[in-house]
Amino acid sequence: MQLALSTWCDVEDYLRSSKALVVPIGSMEQHGPTGLIGTDALCPEIIARRAGERDNFLVGPTFNVGCAQHHLGFPGTITLRPSTMIAALEDWCASLSRHGFRRIYFLNGHGGNTATLHAAFAEIYARRSLNPAAPEESALTLRARNWWELPAVMETCRQLHPSNDGMHATASEIAVTWAAYPEQKRTRKLQPKVAPVNTFTDANHYRENFPDGRIGSDPSQATAANGEKIIAAAVDALITDFRRFESS
Amino acid sequence: MQLALSTWCDVEDYLRSSKALVVPIGSMEQHGPTGLIGTDALCPEIIARRAGERDNFLVGPTFNVGCAQHHLGFPGTITLRPSTMIAALEDWCASLSRHGFRRIYFLNGHGGNTATLHAAFAEIYARRSLNPAAPEESALTLRARNWWELPAVMETCRQLHPSNDGMHATASEIAVTWAAYPEQKRTRKLQPKVAPVNTFTDANHYRENFPDGRIGSDPSQATAANGEKIIAAAVDALITDFRRFESS
Amino acid sequence: MQLALSTWCDVEDYLRSSKALVVPIGSMEQHGPTGLIGTDALCPEIIARRAGERDNFLVGPTFNVGCAQHHLGFPGTITLRPSTMIAALEDWCASLSRHGFRRIYFLNGHGGNTATLHAAFAEIYARRSLNPAAPEESALTLRARNWWELPAVMETCRQLHPSNDGMHATASEIAVTWAAYPEQKRTRKLQPKVAPVNTFTDANHYRENFPDGRIGSDPSQATAANGEKIIAAAVDALITDFRRFESS
Amino acid sequence: MQLALSTWCDVEDYLRSSKALVVPIGSMEQHGPTGLIGTDALCPEIIARRAGERDNFLVGPTFNVGCAQHHLGFPGTITLRPSTMIAALEDWCASLSRHGFRRIYFLNGHGGNTATLHAAFAEIYARRSLNPAAPEESALTLRARNWWELPAVMETCRQLHPSNDGMHATASEIAVTWAAYPEQKRTRKLQPKVAPVNTFTDANHYRENFPDGRIGSDPSQATAANGEKIIAAAVDALITDFRRFESS
Amino acid sequence: MQLALSTWCDVEDYLRSSKALVVPIGSMEQHGPTGLIGTDALCPEIIARRAGERDNFLVGPTFNVGCAQHHLGFPGTITLRPSTMIAALEDWCASLSRHGFRRIYFLNGHGGNTATLHAAFAEIYARRSLNPAAPEESALTLRARNWWELPAVMETCRQLHPSNDGMHATASEIAVTWAAYPEQKRTRKLQPKVAPVNTFTDANHYRENFPDGRIGSDPSQATAANGEKIIAAAVDALITDFRRFESS
Amino acid sequence: MQLALSTWCDVEDYLRSSKALVVPIGSMEQHGPTGLIGTDALCPEIIARRAGERDNFLVGPTFNVGCAQHHLGFPGTITLRPSTMIAALEDWCASLSRHGFRRIYFLNGHGGNTATLHAAFAEIYARRSLNPAAPEESALTLRARNWWELPAVMETCRQLHPSNDGMHATASEIAVTWAAYPEQKRTRKLQPKVAPVNTFTDANHYRENFPDGRIGSDPSQATAANGEKIIAAAVDALITDFRRFESS
Ligand code: NI
Ligand code: NI
Ligand code: NI
Ligand code: NI
Ligand code: NI
Ligand code: NI
Repeated sequence: MQLALSTWCDVEDYLRSSKALVVPIGSMEQHGPTGLIGTDALCPEIIARRAGERDNFLVGPTFNVGCAQHHLGFPGTITLRPSTMIAALEDWCASLSRHGFRRIYFLNGHGGNTATLHAAFAEIYARRSLNPAAPEESALTLRARNWWELPAVMETCRQLHPSNDGMHATASEIAVTWAAYPEQKRTRKLQPKVAPVNTFTDANHYRENFPDGRIGSDPSQATAANGEKIIAAAVDALITDFRRFESS
Repeated sequence: MQLALSTWCDVEDYLRSSKALVVPIGSMEQHGPTGLIGTDALCPEIIARRAGERDNFLVGPTFNVGCAQHHLGFPGTITLRPSTMIAALEDWCASLSRHGFRRIYFLNGHGGNTATLHAAFAEIYARRSLNPAAPEESALTLRARNWWELPAVMETCRQLHPSNDGMHATASEIAVTWAAYPEQKRTRKLQPKVAPVNTFTDANHYRENFPDGRIGSDPSQATAANGEKIIAAAVDALITDFRRFESS
Repeated sequence: MQLALSTWCDVEDYLRSSKALVVPIGSMEQHGPTGLIGTDALCPEIIARRAGERDNFLVGPTFNVGCAQHHLGFPGTITLRPSTMIAALEDWCASLSRHGFRRIYFLNGHGGNTATLHAAFAEIYARRSLNPAAPEESALTLRARNWWELPAVMETCRQLHPSNDGMHATASEIAVTWAAYPEQKRTRKLQPKVAPVNTFTDANHYRENFPDGRIGSDPSQATAANGEKIIAAAVDALITDFRRFESS
Repeated sequence: MQLALSTWCDVEDYLRSSKALVVPIGSMEQHGPTGLIGTDALCPEIIARRAGERDNFLVGPTFNVGCAQHHLGFPGTITLRPSTMIAALEDWCASLSRHGFRRIYFLNGHGGNTATLHAAFAEIYARRSLNPAAPEESALTLRARNWWELPAVMETCRQLHPSNDGMHATASEIAVTWAAYPEQKRTRKLQPKVAPVNTFTDANHYRENFPDGRIGSDPSQATAANGEKIIAAAVDALITDFRRFESS
Repeated sequence: MQLALSTWCDVEDYLRSSKALVVPIGSMEQHGPTGLIGTDALCPEIIARRAGERDNFLVGPTFNVGCAQHHLGFPGTITLRPSTMIAALEDWCASLSRHGFRRIYFLNGHGGNTATLHAAFAEIYARRSLNPAAPEESALTLRARNWWELPAVMETCRQLHPSNDGMHATASEIAVTWAAYPEQKRTRKLQPKVAPVNTFTDANHYRENFPDGRIGSDPSQATAANGEKIIAAAVDALITDFRRFESS
Repeated sequence: MQLALSTWCDVEDYLRSSKALVVPIGSMEQHGPTGLIGTDALCPEIIARRAGERDNFLVGPTFNVGCAQHHLGFPGTITLRPSTMIAALEDWCASLSRHGFRRIYFLNGHGGNTATLHAAFAEIYARRSLNPAAPEESALTLRARNWWELPAVMETCRQLHPSNDGMHATASEIAVTWAAYPEQKRTRKLQPKVAPVNTFTDANHYRENFPDGRIGSDPSQATAANGEKIIAAAVDALITDFRRFESS
């Protein structure tokens, strides 16, 4: 059940049996010469929607642009400043809280979002923490979970791509997007086959260190079939994890 | 050509022949008992993607949550505060400008976004206007266009729904979403058949005046077939309007 | 009755019979070689004060600097960034609400303020909309009205200046200021007599397109006598419109 | 020469011989049962305009709403939050700097503005101070001066109202407004004749301590004639002080 | 009793008998060739801690970086923008208010903080002033006091350094730090012996006017022994002033 | 070498041989019935100062109040909102960058700061990333390191407190503070001896789950002697890690 494809009456019904939903959150950023710019938004969206359909829980709209300043050296990357992202997450959560949602589960597709997501949670919690008279019904429980860290998912990825799955533009995430968008598969010779590993600061520094954008990955291993296996593992894991969160 | 489904190399190529793109912008808000919450994001997304595919221009990710405070009385609505939306639009535009884009065409699906969109444009232009030493290449040209106001579209809507198309949760916009998502069609008796027309301020006031969320509309007229006709008209008009903008 | 020229006891008395007031809002921006920089603030101030005096309603201080980034290429123009204007309007409205005002009518003199005014209204309404427990007495009703769009005013302007009244530095608005400040009349040969019409983005772009600042106007038609007629029409219209608003 | 009553060509001319102007800055706040709410904006406006006319310097629009949170217990008071006022002053100064103004002299009418004015100056200076590459022509020199502290003005006030001129709603400031707006004179028995003196924090606390709004004053001494004498002293002093500032 | 060196149980106990505390507030900024960069934070910290120890009142952590943009021309200076400092002070005060503190006494060590401190107070008070329904227990009373302006302290300073104590990097403040950190004493020939006096705007302007950072001072007079005398006077005065504030 | 105890000439000298410094960053928050509120600020301050003294590197002032909203249920806790902390870190880093520092190493004492620290880094990097024309000398390299995660430190802690060191108000961190402030040792019977482990959201929720504030710890194991051993290990590790960072 997708919020964007529901009516307000559907959501009213849903709230009678659950106060929780999943919000996919990602990024628009380069994923090397063969990975899609939307990869980090598409992966959690694909997984969450499939899980929500199977298990009848609500999936919010995808928060599709996140914190990607370090990728701005590559055309097509879009970033929010962290302060903007905090403000936007405050608004999303305040809106959902207004309707009676009490638990929001962000299924995250981008490691670079994690810090700002947790900063935003603290900003949201701080409103109540600084106001001892805040009504109990304004209390929210927020969770951020990276899809690749759900139980059994990493194992699946390692089985399928035992070496050089990498850290950015990984074979696994690219496989997930090709499973859902098979016509988007690119085949292009990568130089070097396995990308370097290093640290980075801003966009210029990143591009110097990672000339084609990848970090530590050999995405030529990715196939739609592998992607399907990863999705299957992630969908199972998300359903279990979300339901536990919902009733915790 | 969708940015989310492109690689950075694709975008680099694109920028060799065009400095312009289309960004669909909408809202997550109730659309009456039979209209989808995502209607205002879906309509420009559907139209822009189809036009971009046909005419080979770039379509950015959908800015999917906008200014919808007045709809918060109905479950599922999500809003940004206008100040947040301005900050987010600044970041999107600054990112695109970084890559060399000079013209950004927002195809808008929600009347409630218009004021804040133009406020954001003024905020963005003001940076250069207050800084006479700003480099010429940081100049952007921004446009916001409501899809239903593109040439010939309104006429098509009026032909198909000559009376009671309405102002919110219109037969036309709902038809567009059903054309793209036919399985989402709802049939539900609407009471009254034609919704009232009135003004509104905040969410409580809105809900008092418009008990089921619609304004002036009878969306029971909507059909997927009508939606297809509207989309066809809008796609034609968008291609013409965007290409004129691109070369102006 | 002007707020600035009232005592707090006067305002306390006023609030016993009305919860509404008019706030003139304008801009400090170039108005061509013969129009005053304050034109857009002066016009609504002149009209509102005269109407308030005649019909005994309260007129707030003039919000005299607005959104004018595009005019910054001409000396003397002052702008607020839209985000600043939103913050300032929040403060004005919160202050007035604190005293028991429930309806604030902004008589606007500058088209460039409209988007930000409505964004500010949405920002203000959103506070209540996001907080279902907000007390009823914090509800405000806000209206923005351009003085030249009041019923019968545009007709008067067209009668007096049937052609080339223009879009910026119009004969009509300049006439209104000369009616109130006859000693400020400038006579200067305008080149070309009728200014060009075009679009604009930032201040540099504006100045390129409109070398002397005017858009589409021939203000040499303006006379204090014409201004008086326009003021008379506007005062009548404002009284009617404000009183309807007050009691709606 | 008032900026609001000038054309951009007038300002362009002015900038050939001076890079400095005066901006009156005040407040909209209660001034006791007989003083005008606009007193603190009107006094510097009256003085600055008269001085500017006499000595041919430019007087900007009046920054008419300032920091007056403590007066909000009395109807009609309007405040900016200090953070809003800082943002607005940044915008005013950035706009004037854009045109080539290098020295801005704020003639202040409200003690409660002083802290925020200086905080705003530090905010504006900090931009350059944090950026060692800032171009020299972006350097501004800002000054805030209370009109009653100009040389000889306080002496005049003390001569005219040797006792109980007071600290808020003073006989002197009320006299100044009555000199310019003689029809606004109020005569009302004040209880007690001389208002108490005390400290204050927020609006509730202020109203408890100062039941009719005055602090330490007996404004029944005020006369338009006294006001004229104060204005005369202040105009002389401002001309001298501004010209010294301009050429420093 | 230092808050940083207390447990939460200690603070709970303290709140049973007092709702007030002292917060030292200073700056990190150059203090000439022989004065410590931390001088303005250290002085109030030294005085407040000693007084709190003697008289058993609570001393909060030191707000150690303040408004010092004008000193940024000298290495080691750190500043907050005033807007940042206001936000931080809001958070500190909201946190303390949450626990039941009602009176916060800022012992200030830096003249450049004064404006922003008072702007922050107004920002904090404004929240309640704009909200007539704010609960009484959220009322705070805030005070800022410069340590050198406490009764008898200035007299002590003048006795010890009768001439050229100066305005910045004064003999007295440097003496206070050397009393507490005697190993930090610097002896360096100052050129000129007595620093110039002048005005300043931003960091470049300051450094031009005050080549070694001092204003009007001859800190070669400073000794640890003098510092001890000043501390003794300030500790006495602070105890008296704080206890009066606490019970006012 | 402490920045607060240096002169600007000292810092100028230092910058000739190093562009890096360490900034201790912590929190003011409850640490159970026997731990000091300042623990998280004191630990990195103690370690950094001792290391800086031994190895002659510069240690900045301690950023002593961080993100501690979840501890606000216990008296004495002070928090910044994450958005405020981001703004403050921007200002600290911009100031240090102004002087020529290029590498800032934050030695962190509070897990709750980590997300916001990294969000702040992204905010700071984003300025350059969004501005391709940013001068190379404005590039900063920022690092955050938790003192207990320095190589060999965790091992030392585990050796000394093999069980129930805990997650908050740990025996190890309390031991570190008692090593430096032996007179602050508290002995108080803890109930239960070992604190529970759980998740938390806002301050009310935290206090419900952790009645005396500790998480998973038995701080009765802490001794000053143990603290000395931990400090020794951390000082060694910091010197190595900082010097590697400085020259990377
Ligand atoms: Ni990715
Ligand atoms: Ni719609
Ligand atoms: Ni105009
Ligand atoms: Ni006054
Ligand atoms: Ni000092
Ligand atoms: Ni800790």
